[in-house]
Amino acid sequence: MNTLKKRILDRIQPDLALIEEELTRNLEPHIPLVSHVAKYIMLSGGKRIRPVLMILSARICGYEGGYDKTLSVVFEYLHAATLLHDDVVDGAEVRRGKPVAHSIWGNPATVLVGDYLLARAISIASKTEQVTIIDTIASVTADMSEGEIHQLLHRGNLNLNEAEYMEVIRRKTACLIQGACRVGALLAGAPEDKVQALTRYGYDLGCAFQLVDDLLDYTADDKILGKATGTDLKEGKMTLPLIYAMAQASDKDRHRLATIIRDGARNPEDFSTVLELVRKHGGITYTENRAREHVGRARESLSVFESSETRSTLEDVAHYVLKRET
Amino acid sequence: MNTLKKRILDRIQPDLALIEEELTRNLEPHIPLVSHVAKYIMLSGGKRIRPVLMILSARICGYEGGYDKTLSVVFEYLHAATLLHDDVVDGAEVRRGKPVAHSIWGNPATVLVGDYLLARAISIASKTEQVTIIDTIASVTADMSEGEIHQLLHRGNLNLNEAEYMEVIRRKTACLIQGACRVGALLAGAPEDKVQALTRYGYDLGCAFQLVDDLLDYTADDKILGKATGTDLKEGKMTLPLIYAMAQASDKDRHRLATIIRDGARNPEDFSTVLELVRKHGGITYTENRAREHVGRARESLSVFESSETRSTLEDVAHYVLKRET
Repeated sequence: MNTLKKRILDRIQPDLALIEEELTRNLEPHIPLVSHVAKYIMLSGGKRIRPVLMILSARICGYEGGYDKTLSVVFEYLHAATLLHDDVVDGAEVRRGKPVAHSIWGNPATVLVGDYLLARAISIASKTEQVTIIDTIASVTADMSEGEIHQLLHRGNLNLNEAEYMEVIRRKTACLIQGACRVGALLAGAPEDKVQALTRYGYDLGCAFQLVDDLLDYTADDKILGKATGTDLKEGKMTLPLIYAMAQASDKDRHRLATIIRDGARNPEDFSTVLELVRKHGGITYTENRAREHVGRARESLSVFESSETRSTLEDVAHYVLKRET
Repeated sequence: MNTLKKRILDRIQPDLALIEEELTRNLEPHIPLVSHVAKYIMLSGGKRIRPVLMILSARICGYEGGYDKTLSVVFEYLHAATLLHDDVVDGAEVRRGKPVAHSIWGNPATVLVGDYLLARAISIASKTEQVTIIDTIASVTADMSEGEIHQLLHRGNLNLNEAEYMEVIRRKTACLIQGACRVGALLAGAPEDKVQALTRYGYDLGCAFQLVDDLLDYTADDKILGKATGTDLKEGKMTLPLIYAMAQASDKDRHRLATIIRDGARNPEDFSTVLELVRKHGGITYTENRAREHVGRARESLSVFESSETRSTLEDVAHYVLKRET
């Protein structure tokens, strides 16, 4: 483990332990199926980045109450609900090296447990009795769900451009992370400039997080990633490395890429060909640079806060997004 | 059309027209797929009973504001979301005489549009900025989703008893109708006794509604019902007519029933046999009586209100639940 990761983990260890407790405590104990499916999806290597960010955001705004740990699970439940429904939607078979939930429990249970987690999330949020918090979470949920539909409709759309892609990843990933940071600030009753700063931090961090995710699907080591690289390509998902390369490529190379994408990249050598062309036309470097810019902006947003251990942890988290291998 | 139905429709016609407008207006206009799927499920013969009840409940409590029509769609969206996910879960092929959504748009779009409607419902609710309203809707959502899971787990459970069945239908149907009536009262800022009265009215009406639904699956005319009778039986859903008959039957008849249920009622004559045994052991009459009791209690709950056209419409709606054929 690298030093950065170790430093972050050391600092958030006490929070992580309490988050785990709350994740279990807030599930309906009388329906073992819910616990099984929910824990299966939540325990399969998740990083708890969303709850951690909510807690750190509340803390940097001086929150001293006791509801942060409970409220933080909202963001893990919403994330898990999306993963469960995504797996049904994508028909994927493996996530993080394990069979997906619907291949074990079937579509019905997977859909319903996703619904349950969504409902629990809203229910926990409503217990804050803070309308701004509830409204943020409600909007995030609506935004994410529209994003999922957009993504479904854009599948196999070779003409997806960078702006449309950024809108897809904003809805798919950034808005939930942004929501977690914003809600942390709101829970602490922070002044507007700090709420805004953390909202921006969350947005940029979320964009960087997804950009790196999409990069890893091209560049990662399968064993470390826990799933096969090239999955997005096979599912017809156009991500920035490919979008940029297509835009830069010669007509001949663009045609080669388009043919492979349309055919669903079925041959084993297809992915190597695409990766080679994506590298050749600068798709990897361009995406890395965009991710780095977002991380830079995320860190800049923290400048309204005085130096503190919490600020330094939030900066480290942003920095780590660029370094992660899974 | 019978006189009762005509009288109700005449009185709620202006409300119905505004509900239809709001149902469309609150869907994302930029994603045609959402409109197509949502309208398909919402326009397939729905009675708008939930929005109507919310509006009437607000009105009987003296509401004069302008948000009732918008807020009322929450209850149709939540209902439609449940139907969409139910269809995926049940693998049903026909609803109200039309192919179900997932057989046209596929599971992915059906799951995601269900999620979208759920998210929109919460989002519209949060715009009231009334914590009691948001909390009611959040709780209903959680309750319904647990109910769906319970129902999935109870499928084919021959030992389901009446109390367990009542809990299933409370969560499946009654809690949403109860929530609609309660939210109407809360929107109007009604005093606690009236909020309670309408909450009870909604609960009993919802129970009666589902009891009649379950009865119709045994006794209706397929053509009027718009789907085949005997569907619950084929799906292994134990409903009160059958539960009661099983409890009353001789060992021999109980054994015959159990064998057919376990085999999934696959033979054409199975349903006739079950219906005959259910009638013989009083399952139909018993269920009718239970529905009538709930309707009686629903109407009694309205006694805290002075006589008015709205009260009389709410009474008529309760009465009509017993008379409906679809």
